[in-house]
Amino acid sequence: MTAAQEYLDQRQDRNLDQVMELLRIPSISTDPDHAGDVRVGADWIAERMRAIGVPEVRLIETPRHPLVYGKWHAAPGTPTILVYGHYDVQPVDPLTEWLSDPFDPTIRDGRIYARGSADMKANLVTLLQAVEALAATSPTGAPPINLTFLWEGEEEIGSPSAPAAVGAMKDELTADVVMSCDGGMYDGDTGALWISFKGLAAVELIIHTGQTDLHSGGYGAVVPNAAQVLARIAASMHDDDGRVAVPSFYDDVVELSEADRAEIAAMAPSDDDLLSETSVKKLWGEPGYTPEERRSARPTLDINGYWSGYQGAGGKTVTPCLGHIKITCRLVPNQDPNRIAELIAAHAQSVAPAGVTVEPGFYERNGRGYAIPRDNPFLTRLGEVLEAEYGKSARIVRVGGSVPITAMFRELLQRETITLGFLLPGANVHAPNEWFRICDLNRARSVYAAFLSGWQGGAIGTSVPSPGVRKENGR
Amino acid sequence: MTAAQEYLDQRQDRNLDQVMELLRIPSISTDPDHAGDVRVGADWIAERMRAIGVPEVRLIETPRHPLVYGKWHAAPGTPTILVYGHYDVQPVDPLTEWLSDPFDPTIRDGRIYARGSADMKANLVTLLQAVEALAATSPTGAPPINLTFLWEGEEEIGSPSAPAAVGAMKDELTADVVMSCDGGMYDGDTGALWISFKGLAAVELIIHTGQTDLHSGGYGAVVPNAAQVLARIAASMHDDDGRVAVPSFYDDVVELSEADRAEIAAMAPSDDDLLSETSVKKLWGEPGYTPEERRSARPTLDINGYWSGYQGAGGKTVTPCLGHIKITCRLVPNQDPNRIAELIAAHAQSVAPAGVTVEPGFYERNGRGYAIPRDNPFLTRLGEVLEAEYGKSARIVRVGGSVPITAMFRELLQRETITLGFLLPGANVHAPNEWFRICDLNRARSVYAAFLSGWQGGAIGTSVPSPGVRKENGR
Repeated sequence: MTAAQEYLDQRQDRNLDQVMELLRIPSISTDPDHAGDVRVGADWIAERMRAIGVPEVRLIETPRHPLVYGKWHAAPGTPTILVYGHYDVQPVDPLTEWLSDPFDPTIRDGRIYARGSADMKANLVTLLQAVEALAATSPTGAPPINLTFLWEGEEEIGSPSAPAAVGAMKDELTADVVMSCDGGMYDGDTGALWISFKGLAAVELIIHTGQTDLHSGGYGAVVPNAAQVLARIAASMHDDDGRVAVPSFYDDVVELSEADRAEIAAMAPSDDDLLSETSVKKLWGEPGYTPEERRSARPTLDINGYWSGYQGAGGKTVTPCLGHIKITCRLVPNQDPNRIAELIAAHAQSVAPAGVTVEPGFYERNGRGYAIPRDNPFLTRLGEVLEAEYGKSARIVRVGGSVPITAMFRELLQRETITLGFLLPGANVHAPNEWFRICDLNRARSVYAAFLSGWQGGAIGTSVPSPGVRKENGR
Repeated sequence: MTAAQEYLDQRQDRNLDQVMELLRIPSISTDPDHAGDVRVGADWIAERMRAIGVPEVRLIETPRHPLVYGKWHAAPGTPTILVYGHYDVQPVDPLTEWLSDPFDPTIRDGRIYARGSADMKANLVTLLQAVEALAATSPTGAPPINLTFLWEGEEEIGSPSAPAAVGAMKDELTADVVMSCDGGMYDGDTGALWISFKGLAAVELIIHTGQTDLHSGGYGAVVPNAAQVLARIAASMHDDDGRVAVPSFYDDVVELSEADRAEIAAMAPSDDDLLSETSVKKLWGEPGYTPEERRSARPTLDINGYWSGYQGAGGKTVTPCLGHIKITCRLVPNQDPNRIAELIAAHAQSVAPAGVTVEPGFYERNGRGYAIPRDNPFLTRLGEVLEAEYGKSARIVRVGGSVPITAMFRELLQRETITLGFLLPGANVHAPNEWFRICDLNRARSVYAAFLSGWQGGAIGTSVPSPGVRKENGR
C-alpha cells in the first residue's frame, strides 16, 4: 500500500463528510434563483483547495457563475495536467419522483442519493482528496505532477462563459493535456476510456397564433390553435420510423466504419438490459442502427419539454394562442451546432400554417462534439492505470452525452482531453434519484492518485511527449 | 315608460353595485381550491332572491357545488317559465394577460372587465332585478308570470350533478318552457335568437413511456420520448387541411342543407372581421365549409392544453416519460359525446408506438348538442320582444359553444329551452379580459322585464300552448 493510500484510508469518514457537504449545496446553474447557491459551491471548493495546500487559488468571475482556478506546479520535469470539472448541477424536477430530498444526500443500499452525486461532485471531491494525499505524503509536500485546476459553474447550461474566460487566461492554463473529471466507468467492475462525446444544440421555439386565448366554441373551428401547431411542429421533427426529419440534419455526419460498428457492437448492452434499465416496454430510434450505435455515434434530436394552453385541474374549453417547446440535439463531431439550430428553427417555421409566428430562442448552439485521437499517450497511460486498478482492460466508450468544453479546450488551448470519472450507467444523471456508490469513493481516490503518480522516473517518466493537436478528429 | 322601467331607472347605481358584488366572488367551479367561493356565490344569489320576495328559496346540495332553487308562482292563468342560469365561472389563467384583476371588476370605456361578467353573472343579476321591478310595481306584489329559478354552480365543468338533481326534483321544475339566461346578442345593436348549441366531449390523455425521465444523452436515441409521442398523437387529431382525422368522427353528422347554408351565410361575419376579432393572421379549419359553418354547425376538435417534460427556465437535457393532453370536441346534435370520447382515446392508442401506454380520462362525455324547433311559440314571442326592443329583426344564431343542460332539460323535463342573455361577440368569454357593456345592463333589465310581461290579457295572453317535445331536432 502506498503512503497516499494509507493517508486516505485513515480519513474515510471525514472524506465522506466532505462529499456530503458539497452535495448539500443546491448549485443549480440553470435557475437564476439559485445563483447564490452556485457561488456558495464555488467558495466551498476554493476553500477546500486552499486547505489542501494549493498555493494559488482564486475565483474567476463571469457574467453568470464563477470558475474556480487553482495552480500547484511543484514537480519540475513532469507534465502539466489541467484538471477540469464542474460543480453546478441540473434542476431537480419532477421533485415528487425523488425518494429523498435531492439536496439532503441520503445513503441507501450503499449509494449516496443526491442531485450532482454522479454528475459530478463525488468526482470533484475525491480528486481533491487524492491530490491532498499525494501532497501530504510526498517529500516535497506537493503533488508529484504539475496541476492546474479549473472548476466550472456553468457546465449544465452549456458553458456560456467558459470560452471567453479560457481565452483570456490561456497562459495560466498552459498544460500538456486536459483531464476532465466529468466522466464514468463502464460498469461497477470495469474501467472505461471515454473517447468521444456528442455535441449539443439547444433550441426553444415559441409559437404565437394570436394575441389572446379564445373560447373554443366561438373560434376553435376558425383560427389556428397554437397547441395543435406546436404538436405538428414537434411531430414533424422525426419521421414515422424515428429518423430525424429536419432537412439537411444529417448532411455533415460521417458514416460509421465497419471497424467502428464492430467496436460499438462489442460494447453494446443487450436490448433486455436496456429495457430493464429504462423501464420502457420497447426500444425506439433511428432505423438502420443499433441502439448502441444511435446512443454513442449517431446524431439525435430530443424534445425535452413543452407546454401550451390550460394545464390546471379539470378542463377548459380554450383555443390556445401560445406554445413553448424545448429541443436539444446530440450531435457527432463534424456537425456544427449553430447550423443545426438554424435548420430546426427554419423547419419549424416551414411546418407552421401561414400566418403563425415561430420565434426561435437559441439558448445553446456552441457545443461541438469531440473525439480524442486513439493514440494519445495520456489516453494510453490512463488505460494502463485502469487495467491495473480494475484487473482487466478498460472498455472503449463513445459517450452519448455532451461535454462541449472538450472541443473548446482543443480550439483555445490546442490540447486534447482525457476523461476520468466514476459515475456508473443507470445512475439517474439529470433525472430523479441520481446516485453514486459509496465504494466508488475509495476507488476514485485510488485511481486519481495512481494516475497522478509515477510521471517522473516511473514507467512513463519524462518520455511523455506533448500531444499537441491532431488533425484527425476521429468520428 | 312602464312602472317597472321607472322602478329600474331609479335604482341604477344600486343595481350596478349588485352586479359588481357578484363579480367579486371567484366562483371558479373547476378548481377545488375555489369550492368555498362557489358556495359564497350560491349564498349571495339565494339571499338576493329572498330580498326581492321570492317566497320559496333553497340550496340544492350536490357532490360538488350547490344549485340555487327558487319558486314564485303567483300568476294563475299564465305559463310557467323555468329560469336557468349558472353562477360559476371559468379559470382565469393566464393571469398575466389580464389588464386588471379578474375578480376586481373594473370599468374601462363603458365596459365592466371581470371574469364571469359576460358568462353570465351580469345576465343573472339583471334578470333578478327585472323580476324585482315587475313584482314591486305589480298590484299583486308578484311577477306577472309564474317563475321557477334554477341557478347552477357547475356549468363550466359540464354540469356533472345537474342530471341527478333535476331528475330528483322533476315535479318542482314543472314548466312550459325553460328560459336560459346563458346567452347573448348578435351585436351591440341587434338582438339574437339562439337556435342551437353544440355538444361537448372532453378527454384527457396521459401518456407513459416509462417510469422515470431519462438523460437524453444516454437514452434519447434509444427509448420512446413521451413528449414526442404526445406530439404525434396531438398532431394526428387533424389532417393537414384541418379536417378531424379521428376515424368515424363524422359518422353521425347530418350534412347541412342548402337552406341551412344560406341562412348561415346571411349571418356570417366577414373574414376580415374574424381576423381582427381574433388577432390571427389567417383563418384555419375544415375545408369545404365557411368559417361560420364550421363555427356554428360543424363538429370540431380542439386541443386545449398539454404539457410534458421540462418547463422551467433554460434547458434540460431530458427524455420525458410522461405527457398530459386535454382535448375537447364541439359536436352537432346527432353526435353522441360518449362515443366520440371513446373514438379519440382509441385513435390515440393506435397512433402511439408499441409499448407506450395511453391512459384516457373522460372528464366530460354527456354534453349532447341541442337545437330548438323553429316554430316553438316561446321562441316566436322572444323574437317579437327583441324586435320591439332593438327596432329590427333579431338574427338567427347557431351557437358554437355548448350549453349541455338544454339537451338535459329536453330529456328529463320534456321541455324546450329558449335562450335570453346579453353578452356580445368578442367579449373574451373563457379568455383574459372578459367584459360586459354597462349600457347592456339597462338593456338586459328592460328586455327581461318585457319578455316576462304581457302573458295574460296581452298580445299572447293565455293562448300560448305548452310546447312539449318535438321529434325533429333540427340540426
